[in-house]
This record gives sequence, C-alpha cells and structure tokens, in this order.
Amino acid sequence: MGSLTDIGVAAGINILSALGFLLAFAVLRIQPINDRVYFPKWYLKGTRSSPRSMGTVFSKFVNADLSTYIRFLNWMPAALQMPEPELIEHAGLDSAVYVRIYLLGLKIFVPIAVLAFIVLVPINWASGTLEKEKSLSYDQIDKLSISNLGKGSKRFWAHIVMAYVFTFWTFFVLYREYKVVTTMRLRFLANQNRRADQFTVLVRNVPPDPDETVSEHVEHFFAVNHRDHYLSHQTVYNANTLAGLVEQKKGLQNWLVYYENQHAKNPAKKPTMKTGLWGLWGKRVDAIEHYTTAIEELCKQEDEERHKVITDPNAIMPAAFVSFKSRWGAAVCAQTQQTSNPTLWLTEWAPEPRDVFWPNLAIPFVELSVRRLIMAVALFFLTFFFMIPIAIVQSMANLDDIERMLPFLKPIIERNSLKSIVQGFLPGIALKIFLILLPTFLVMMSKIEGHTSLSGLDRRTASKYYLFLFVNVFLGSVITGTAFQQLNNFIHQSANKYAQSVIASLLWMWVRGIPEIVGESIPMKATFFITYVMVDGWAGVAAEVLRLKPLVMFHIKNTFLVRTERDREQAMDPGSLDFGTTEPRIQLYFLLGLVYAVVTPILLPFIIVFFSLAYLVFRHQIINVYNQQYESGAQFWPDVQRRLVIALIVSQILLLGLLSTQEAEKSTAALLPLPVLSIWFHYVCKGRFEPAFIKFPLQDAMVKDTLERANDPTLNLREYLKDAYVHPVFQKNDIYEFAAIDEEEKNPMVATKRQSRMNTPVDSKFNSSSGTNEGEFSRMAPT
Amino acid sequence: MGSLTDIGVAAGINILSALGFLLAFAVLRIQPINDRVYFPKWYLKGTRSSPRSMGTVFSKFVNADLSTYIRFLNWMPAALQMPEPELIEHAGLDSAVYVRIYLLGLKIFVPIAVLAFIVLVPINWASGTLEKEKSLSYDQIDKLSISNLGKGSKRFWAHIVMAYVFTFWTFFVLYREYKVVTTMRLRFLANQNRRADQFTVLVRNVPPDPDETVSEHVEHFFAVNHRDHYLSHQTVYNANTLAGLVEQKKGLQNWLVYYENQHAKNPAKKPTMKTGLWGLWGKRVDAIEHYTTAIEELCKQEDEERHKVITDPNAIMPAAFVSFKSRWGAAVCAQTQQTSNPTLWLTEWAPEPRDVFWPNLAIPFVELSVRRLIMAVALFFLTFFFMIPIAIVQSMANLDDIERMLPFLKPIIERNSLKSIVQGFLPGIALKIFLILLPTFLVMMSKIEGHTSLSGLDRRTASKYYLFLFVNVFLGSVITGTAFQQLNNFIHQSANKYAQSVIASLLWMWVRGIPEIVGESIPMKATFFITYVMVDGWAGVAAEVLRLKPLVMFHIKNTFLVRTERDREQAMDPGSLDFGTTEPRIQLYFLLGLVYAVVTPILLPFIIVFFSLAYLVFRHQIINVYNQQYESGAQFWPDVQRRLVIALIVSQILLLGLLSTQEAEKSTAALLPLPVLSIWFHYVCKGRFEPAFIKFPLQDAMVKDTLERANDPTLNLREYLKDAYVHPVFQKNDIYEFAAIDEEEKNPMVATKRQSRMNTPVDSKFNSSSGTNEGEFSRMAPT
Repeated sequence: MGSLTDIGVAAGINILSALGFLLAFAVLRIQPINDRVYFPKWYLKGTRSSPRSMGTVFSKFVNADLSTYIRFLNWMPAALQMPEPELIEHAGLDSAVYVRIYLLGLKIFVPIAVLAFIVLVPINWASGTLEKEKSLSYDQIDKLSISNLGKGSKRFWAHIVMAYVFTFWTFFVLYREYKVVTTMRLRFLANQNRRADQFTVLVRNVPPDPDETVSEHVEHFFAVNHRDHYLSHQTVYNANTLAGLVEQKKGLQNWLVYYENQHAKNPAKKPTMKTGLWGLWGKRVDAIEHYTTAIEELCKQEDEERHKVITDPNAIMPAAFVSFKSRWGAAVCAQTQQTSNPTLWLTEWAPEPRDVFWPNLAIPFVELSVRRLIMAVALFFLTFFFMIPIAIVQSMANLDDIERMLPFLKPIIERNSLKSIVQGFLPGIALKIFLILLPTFLVMMSKIEGHTSLSGLDRRTASKYYLFLFVNVFLGSVITGTAFQQLNNFIHQSANKYAQSVIASLLWMWVRGIPEIVGESIPMKATFFITYVMVDGWAGVAAEVLRLKPLVMFHIKNTFLVRTERDREQAMDPGSLDFGTTEPRIQLYFLLGLVYAVVTPILLPFIIVFFSLAYLVFRHQIINVYNQQYESGAQFWPDVQRRLVIALIVSQILLLGLLSTQEAEKSTAALLPLPVLSIWFHYVCKGRFEPAFIKFPLQDAMVKDTLERANDPTLNLREYLKDAYVHPVFQKNDIYEFAAIDEEEKNPMVATKRQSRMNTPVDSKFNSSSGTNEGEFSRMAPT
Repeated sequence: MGSLTDIGVAAGINILSALGFLLAFAVLRIQPINDRVYFPKWYLKGTRSSPRSMGTVFSKFVNADLSTYIRFLNWMPAALQMPEPELIEHAGLDSAVYVRIYLLGLKIFVPIAVLAFIVLVPINWASGTLEKEKSLSYDQIDKLSISNLGKGSKRFWAHIVMAYVFTFWTFFVLYREYKVVTTMRLRFLANQNRRADQFTVLVRNVPPDPDETVSEHVEHFFAVNHRDHYLSHQTVYNANTLAGLVEQKKGLQNWLVYYENQHAKNPAKKPTMKTGLWGLWGKRVDAIEHYTTAIEELCKQEDEERHKVITDPNAIMPAAFVSFKSRWGAAVCAQTQQTSNPTLWLTEWAPEPRDVFWPNLAIPFVELSVRRLIMAVALFFLTFFFMIPIAIVQSMANLDDIERMLPFLKPIIERNSLKSIVQGFLPGIALKIFLILLPTFLVMMSKIEGHTSLSGLDRRTASKYYLFLFVNVFLGSVITGTAFQQLNNFIHQSANKYAQSVIASLLWMWVRGIPEIVGESIPMKATFFITYVMVDGWAGVAAEVLRLKPLVMFHIKNTFLVRTERDREQAMDPGSLDFGTTEPRIQLYFLLGLVYAVVTPILLPFIIVFFSLAYLVFRHQIINVYNQQYESGAQFWPDVQRRLVIALIVSQILLLGLLSTQEAEKSTAALLPLPVLSIWFHYVCKGRFEPAFIKFPLQDAMVKDTLERANDPTLNLREYLKDAYVHPVFQKNDIYEFAAIDEEEKNPMVATKRQSRMNTPVDSKFNSSSGTNEGEFSRMAPT
C-alpha cells in the first residue's frame, strides 16, 4: 500500500460501496412498507399516520410509481432545506447542535485545505529530497508530504508559519462556534415553555434524622432555608426491583402477543411451548395459558413489591426533587451550598423528568468517590491493557489445545482447509467481540460512576470512548502501524502478537520520549489513515442511512407481534443519535485533520468529503428518523470543544516532535508557544462560555418569572408540578398505586392520564417544542 | 562530607548558633527599651502602654533585675500556655491555624519516625551490602539507608509495606486536620460579629450603559434581579494616583518630623539640606521650610486629584461593592451567575475592607486572562531559566573585562589578595541579590495577575514560591548536588557553571526519565539535606525570634523621628506572618520528610526538631509580635493541603523510580497504586471540605440572619454599611472629602471618626474578636 494507485483503487472501492448503500437506501425508502423504518420521527410527531399511497394491496407494500425512482437522490437537498430554527423545533436543540459539529469540520478544514494546497504542497513537491536518496523506498504520496524536505531544510519555516495560521484559524472558528452554540442554548432556554425542571432542584444526600422521615426533613429544611421560595417536593423511592419486574412483565407480554397472533392465524391449532431454557427442552405446555399465568403471577409480585416500596421506610431514598415557587428560587438553590457540610444536601438542577436515570439517585457521597476511583482505574486498564485478557482467551482457544482436550474432534480439525480457516479466524474473534461490546462496557462504567441523568451518562461515555480511540486507534496505529489494519483485517492476525507489539512500543516510547517517536512516524502513516477515512468514514456513514438492523427488526416484529396500530407504533425503533459513541468518532477525524494539515495535506480532501457526507446523512436522519430520549439543551458542547482543543494541542506537540528529529532546532523552538497559546485559549473559552452550560443565570430566571406572572397570574404551580417527578413505574399504571402513594404523602393526587413510558419522550418533546401550555395534561400520548 | 562525624560537627555548630540566637533573644527581650520590639502586639491591643519597670531612668532602658535573667527560657512554656480559643481571639484564626501547620508536621512525622527506627533502620543496617562492595566509597549514614540493600533484595518489601503504612498514616492525619480546620473556620465565621463583608458582594465587570452611570446601572440591575434582598452599593473609584500622592506626602512628613526634631534638640542651628538627589548635591536650603512648602504643594495636588477622581466619570470603575439586606441575600448573590454572559456582572464575596487590594479592582475580564497567560509564562521562565540573566550579568562583571574597560582600575585589581576575593565574590553576588529579591518579584507577579484581596495575593505568591523551591532547591539539589551548597557557600562558586549544570541535567532527565534519575540520587543527598535542615531550619528559626532587623529599625526611628507616644506607636513594626514566603518553606520540610521517611529515616529526627522549635517560636511570635494585616479565616488551608498531597505523591513517585533501578520489578509494581490513591484522596478531601473555604452555606447565613433579627430588630443596616467600602484615601481625611462624595452619591453621609489607616487593622481585629457590637463606631482607634 502507499502508492497513489493503491489509494485510487481503495477510493474506488469505497466510493462504490458508499454509492451502493445510498442507492439501496434510495430504493428502500420509497417503498411504503418501509415507511415506518425511514420516517419514524414523523409518525411519532403524529403528522404521518400511514404509508403514502393508499391504493391496492400491492401498492401498499411496493412503490410502483417509477417517477419516484428517477429522483432517488432528492432526499439530499430535502435534508438541507429545513432551516435551523425549524430544525430545533422539530428535533430539539441537541440534535440541531450535533449536526453543527460536522459543519464545524467543514468550516475548519475547507480553508485550511485550500491554503495547504496553495502553499505547502508545492513546497513539499519541489523539495525532492526523497528522489535524490534513491536507496530509500518511498510512496508517491510522501512526495507531497513534509518528509520530502531534507533534514535541516529552511523550508520548514513555511510549515511553521502555516502551523500558526492553521492554529489561529481554528481558534477563530472554535470561538465563534462556541459563541453561536451558547447563544442558541440561551435562546432555547429562554423560549422554552414552562417545564417542571425549570422549577425543580434535585437534592441528594439528605442526612438521616432520628425524629423525622426524609419527606418531613426535606420539607422543614427548605421551608426554613428558602423560606420565600420553597413550594413542594417529591421523595425518591428505590424502585429498582419494581422496575425490573415491570421490564420482565413486558417481555412476557410480548411472547403472549406472539402466541395469540399465531392462534388467531390458525385457530385450529393451540400453540404450545416447552418450559425449559429458551424453549428447547422441558415439559410441553399450552403457550397462551402458560404466559397468561406467568403474567398474572408477575402482576401479583409487582403489586406486592409496589406495596413494599411504598410502605417500607428503607425504600425511601435520602434524595428528593424539590420544587420552588419561581425559577429564580430554583436557580438560587441549585447554585448554592446549603449547609456547612458540603457532602450533605447536595443540590443540582433537576434533569428533565425523562432524562432522569432513576437507579443512580440513591448513591451516597462517599460511595460515589470510591466508585469513581475504581472506574478510573478500570478505564486505565481497559485502555492500555485491554489486549491481555483477550490474548488469554485466545491462547485458550488454540486449536492444538482444543485437540488435546477434546480428542474426538481431531479428525474434523485435522482437515487442512478447515484448520487454516479456523486457525486464522479464532484468535481474532475475541478481539472483534470485545470491540463490539466496548461501548456497552463504557456505558456500564458510566452508570457505575453514579451520574443521575441519561445525558450525563452519554457525555461520560463519550469521554471514555474518546480516550480509548485516541490511545488505541490513533497512537496505536501510528506506533505499531498494525493496530488498525488489524481491526480491519482481524482474521489474519494474532491478537497475541498485537498485544506484545503494543506493550513493546509503549515501553520504547517511555524510554525515548513520546512526541518524537509519534511525530517521526506520523508522515509514514498518511496513506493508512486515508484508507481508514474512506472505509470507516465514507462507507460507514452511507451504511448509517440505510438502517439495516432496524429495517430487519421492524419487519420481524411487524410479522409476528403487531396486531393494532399501536403495536405497530411500538414496533418502530426510531433510535437516537448515540452521542456516547458517534461523537468520539467524529473527534478522531478532527484529530487526523489537524495532525496532517501541516504534515501531509493530501489527507484533508478525504476528511472534507467525510464531513460533507456525514452532515447530509445525519441531518436527514435527525429530521426523519431519530427520536431523542432527552433534551439537554446542547449541554455536551463544552466537551466537544475541549476534545477539539486537545486534538489541536496533540497536533502541535506531534509537529514539535517531528521537527525535532529533522535537525531544525530553531524552527522547533518557534513552535513552543503554540501549545501554551492553545491551553490559554481553552481557559479563555471555558471562562467565557462554559457557565452558560452549567448554571442558569438569575437575570434570565427573573425575566421568565416576571413574564409568567404577567401572562398567567392564576397559575396553580403546585398542581402543575405535583407528579412531574414520580418514578416512571408509578406513573404508568392506574389510580390504585397513586392512591397508595397518596396515603404515604398524605396529599391526595389526581389520577394520571399518562399511558406508557414509551410515549413520554415523544410527547414531552412535542410539548416543549410546539407551544402547548396545558401542563401535565399535554403529556398525554396523542394516540 | 557525609560521615557521621561531619554531621555531628555540623549539628554542633548549628545547635550552638541556634542557642546563641535564643540566648541573645532571652537577654534582649527583658530590656525595657526593647519592649516595643518584642511585644508590639500587646501595645496594639492597648493592654500594654509602657515598659514594665517605671523606676529610674537607667531601669527604663536596662533590666537590672537579675532574677529575670535566670528564667531566660521561660518564654517557651509561656508560648504554649495560651489555649487555642484564646489564641484565635487574640491573634485571629489565620495565625492560629498557621501554627497548626508546624503541629501537623509533628503529628505526621513523630509516629513515622518511631516506626521507621523500629522497622527500617535495623533492616537497612543488617543488610550490609555496602560493606561487602569495598570498592564503593560510602558514607556511614548510608548504612542506615535503603542503599545498603543489594539490588533485587527481598527486603525491599519491608520498605514497600512501610511506604503504604506511612501513606495511610499521612492520609489519616491530613484528613483529620482538614476536618478540624474546617470546623474551626465554620465556628469562627458563625461566632463572628456583624461585619460589613458578611452583607457585601464585590461586583466586577459592570457593562457600560449609554444612558446610565455605573452607579445607577448597578442599582437598577440588583434592584430588579435581587428584588427582595438588595440594599445599597458603593462604587469604586480609580484612586491609584491619589493613593500615590498620599504615600508621597507621608514620606515628606517623616522628613519634616526628623528635621523638626533636630531643630528642637538644637534650637540655635537651623537644619539645612541639599535639594538634589538623596540630598547629596544641589542648592542648600532651609530643611523645615523646604519640606513645609513641598507638603503644602502636595496637599494642593492631592486636593485637585481628589476633586478630579470624584467628578471625572472615567475615574469611576465598572465595579461596585453591593450590600444586601441579609447575609442570605449576599450569599446567594456571591454564589450565583447573574447574566447569560458569564464575563459580566461577576460576583464574589467581598473581602474584608482592610483585605481589599484596591489597585486591582478595575481590571476587565479579557485583560485578566491575558495577564494570567503572561504571568504563567513568566513564572515558567523564572523557575527554569532564572540562571540565564544572572549568568549574563555575571559574565559582564568579570574582572578581566572590567580591567579592559576601565584600565585605571588595573593596579588596584591586580593586587593578588583582593583579586582572589573579588573574583570569588562577584559571580555569586548577582545570584544572592536575586534570591533576596525573589519574593518581591513573586508578589509583583501576583499583583499583575489581578487578584482583588491581599489574602489572595499571599496565597498566589505562596504557590509560585513553592514551585520555585521545589524545582530549584529540591530537584536542583538532588540532581546537580550543588544547587543548595551554592546558596550557602555562594562565594566560591560561579553561577555560570551552575546554570550550565542545571540545564545539562534537565536535558539528561528529559532523555532518561525524571523519576528514575531523581530517585536514584535521592539516598546520596541525605547528608546534604540534613545539613540544610540544620542551617535553614534550626538556626533560621532561632534567628526569627530575635527580630534583628525590626530591632535595629525601631531604635533608629526611636532616636530620630519619635516625638509623641503616637509616633512611637507608629515606629513599631510588628510585622506579620508572611504567608507567601514562610509557608512554602515549611512545605519543603514536609517534602523532605516524606521523601526520606522510607529511604533514609535518619533524616526524620532533624525535621522533628525543626517542627518543634518552629512551633514554639512562631506561637510566641503570633502571641507577642505579629499583627496580621487581614483576617481571611484560614482560607489558605486548601492550598496547604494540596501542597502536602503533592509532596506525598512526589515521594511515592521518587520511591518508585528508586526501586525501579534496584532490579526489584515486582515490588516496584506493588507501589503503583499509591500515587493513584493519593490523587483520589486529594479529590475526596477537596469535595468534602474545600467548599467550606470558598462558599458560605445558606443555612448558616439564615441562622445568623434570624438570630440578628431577634437580637437587634431595630438595626439600621444601611447606616452600618454606608462607608465600609470607601477607598482608604477617602476615609482617613476630614469631612470635606466626604461631603464631596456625598454630592456624587446624592446621599448625605455622617463624618467619619476613623483616624488613620494604620489603626484600622488593629481595631477591626479588636472589634471582630472582643465582641463589641456598635458597628462602625467601634472601629475607632482606642487612642
């Protein structure tokens, strides 16, 4: 690999596969039968209720209108047409800001690429050092890179000046973008309708009181210390077991529906099943009956558990959602320290009700810090030593060992063709499985860390994943040169050897100084990363738009489970932007672009193509497909900005390392101010903008309060907030449970009209964006 | 050096010199004439008004009571007798907590030393590797150190276990101490009487408004956004020029007094002076007349300037002290963000009036971050490259060059004896001057960074000084082995060579990895550091109690300037604990103790002696001498704790580095969790205690408010707060200026009764500790 022809071939293959995905998407999306796979967002919003053509049975499934096939690419301009304010209203601020990350990539790299091609490429090309030293083997592409300059060349000054220009351009774009996003967030918050979380603060670590229940203690504390502002509160129950039972019941109900459908199709035959593991063995019983009894059993258990939760004082957690009479009061309480012991009465903004991660609300402060320590250590080992357990598993999965332990398999294994395939395949499979499971591990680790909101979990997962990608994909590829080829061609590589090479190279780096080693090998890896951008970036993004997994899943569910329109709605899996795993991947492209902008500018066009394509695809997806689980108001932006600045600093340090090996000491010293400036830039931006993402300014709170008092002087806020923060397992059932809670709270509540949790996010979004103002009742599903 | 005899000799010398200082102090302090030098604190408190014996003229100056000479050491138990609560009331919380740092040293190191002498010293001694390898030259003392174990010895496990024990013991003591100090601070704040800063918030970066003055803008903003709590405010004037004029006038007045005294002693002769530089040349004039006119001139200028400041809108800074109706309101405002732009309307707790650093109140946000960037870069260069400019100065001060440039000096220089002295002396003098000026530089740098309180300045200076000491004294001594010997014996060493060796060793470290190199040389430096502890620690502390400089200065002033009792009071220079320079020095001893606890435990007793002696001396000084300029309520403790944890981590990393060179890989790996645990410990303590030093909890504010409302329902708070935060140059003059301000404020004020700035601290302290409750009038000097 490495020659221009090779890159051309790789580009051809990847362009073709990307086009293939796009073509398949274009055809599939206009089939009415797939309508709910490719346009679920509109169904959830209630503006689309059935496939577009309502003609014959045939046309209900297949689109026969040939003219639509001709315009198969017109989803692209359509994706761009929706203006940003409308996009925010339609998909929420999180999504709208998320696609701006791709746009930001274009804003940064298009001017940099133009400048690099005008200035740096000719200089590199004209140097011709590589041609003179015939003994060295070199790639065509290296003639366009910094390696073509001889050691100690004066032309390095051009690269240094460009490094400054690129850095300042990036500063400028980043600063402006941070400012724009901050403004968008503030405007979004200011325009939001009345929402429960504006008035509510999450209080954790309520200290135990010998004489009072948690509820009384909370009430007394806030009634005294926020005398003029305290309104009401909602204690938190440890309903994790109950939530588990509810989940379990839902699974059984799915099976019941499945068998009932079968029975309906074929009324003659009673469907039967085996009671053993996975229905493979055990007694054969009547399926419908079995599940009906099982569900009844569970219902009983659930009721008992529910009763236990409500009556058992130990199930009441030392946490509460405290609501205030005004946004000002809530803003004050969330931003201040309540008592002299800063580990008690911890207050923070309550997340949106649907954003709350209930299982974590009950963790005490000391346990939290222990958990975080353990997770930090675990992350370290996961990042740097993840190959060791995999290598162990692999060595156990050695064919010769298997032969020795299970000698009867010998004749099968000894067949030559099979042996070579398995021998090649086995070692890689553990690694592959690990990489697929990695995001799940990381989410689990974030959960263990004890964050109380889903958005917080996503942000922490993204940080962990970024660290992993940076160390193992970026540094790993640059140093060993094999890490990522292996991820692609894992079949022919022993992970054991890989682990050894990673450890060896880490040691080598420790001895010789990381920046120089990495910097030195950077130019040599350009072709590899170009291929990577095409495989992971181009083809990967095109595959995203096709939604293969949801497509298959929808049709399976549609065939076996769906009976009513509502079932069909539940069978839709709109998915959501998975910030925790997609954002770190984008960051990897930013990192590559910034690192190679000065070194091998030829990489930049590939990255620009990726950003354009991804912008198009994800804008289309957030308009038509994704349904976010929560709305955090772009709270992730400080993280995005921080990682971008890290990428910038890494690129500067690597350039420093590279130049220091090129006998250009003076010019190297000229680069030293860059990382200092970048760190400073980071702190300036942080000071200037970050508070807008953490705190809620009192002035804004006061303005909204005043407006509201003027518009709606008769508002009964207590009624409005009453059950906004009730645990979801208590929300979705009938009056009975509420009556039970009421007993506990000695505070009668009205019956909720909410229907199912699945609908909550939709409605809440709908509610917050479309301007209804009827409080909790607007949360009802439109059904 | 290095043998036990050498250390014995050094110890003897230093013990003798320390005893000499203590003896001199014991004699001098009981002479009535020195009473104001050694007991100024009591004069300032007003409980001591004249030398103890009021007998003959002779006994006014010399103590003839021989019995007191016999009990010359009884200041030591006296220093220990005052119980801590009384100490806090007498000297303030800052001082009381400061001496606890020395006590903390004892608490950490006494048990560690006992354990180390029981366990580690026998193990080291019994190993005897050094004796076997006769070829190596070794010190006696090394037989007690870790170097006596052979490479790869199993006995290293004892040291590793001890490292864990010492670490956990340090954790325990640090945690408990942090807890105690936090409790002390909270109790101190809770017991404080009504003080202006409890109700006041410093607002900076008030945005310009085209239609309103700063004063109106502030009033409107807070009246709207803190509707129920806003009381009043005080704008800040840029009175830096005016303050300069006042200072200048004070200097001239001193001279006037001096000449008037001379004239009074000798009425026949009119004192004369020359007008030129330092009175050395120029026209000879009548001195009294000259200074009287000069002062009149200055008074006129001062009046003009004062008028200008008051009338010129440009002299009004975009900052204000905003007061609230309750402590709760102020606590809320200080802890929250006011507007969506977090760089405007920045609020923070107002420092005590006497703690405000007025010149920095006017710096805008952007300029602040630029200033901090520049100072960070400057600190880096100062720390790592401070030798370069000194080397340049020194090379210019070369004798041969001087001969060439000023040939007429040749005969003098060529005299042999002189030449060798000067040649040895000249190169060192620039370094010595630099080291004396260093704290001043660091204070200047902190001022440029723009901190608004004197306590903040001190804390920042301490951080900078600690970095300098750590890099240049600790690392420098360990690596080059010469840095500190040179500081002691600077006469015989060329700083040029020193600079070269420092740079060379820094490069070497970069290549080979810092922890290993430093770790490896640690044991070899034990004797050097023992000597250092004795010279700087024992003798240095004993010299502190003698107060040589203030003693001399007092007698000079007393002879030439003092006419009245009040003059004599002004001539006293009680000084204060200089946190910025003394605390980092203590930290150096902690660092040495922790680093050598495992490696060469023989160092510990020397450090314990230092801590005991220093505890005694400084407790005596804060009781009898020092008069703090401000009271920050032990706000410096988080810094102390942070640096202690840094020292702990450094000691662990160096031990790691040391063991990694001893072919004990497994045992090295066993140490890896230690730094991770320490970092975690730091964050746990930070989360648990630090907020108590930054924020003021709402509950405590509410309690105080409620109590006050009950005790004093008729309090006129507006009157009480009215001129608490007026710039000192406006405070200390007569009604006239206040009338002028009143015009500006359209808010008539009563005449102030304060007398001079010098008295303010005293009274304010007196006020805050002795329980008077009459508001501003209690601030009057007791005269």
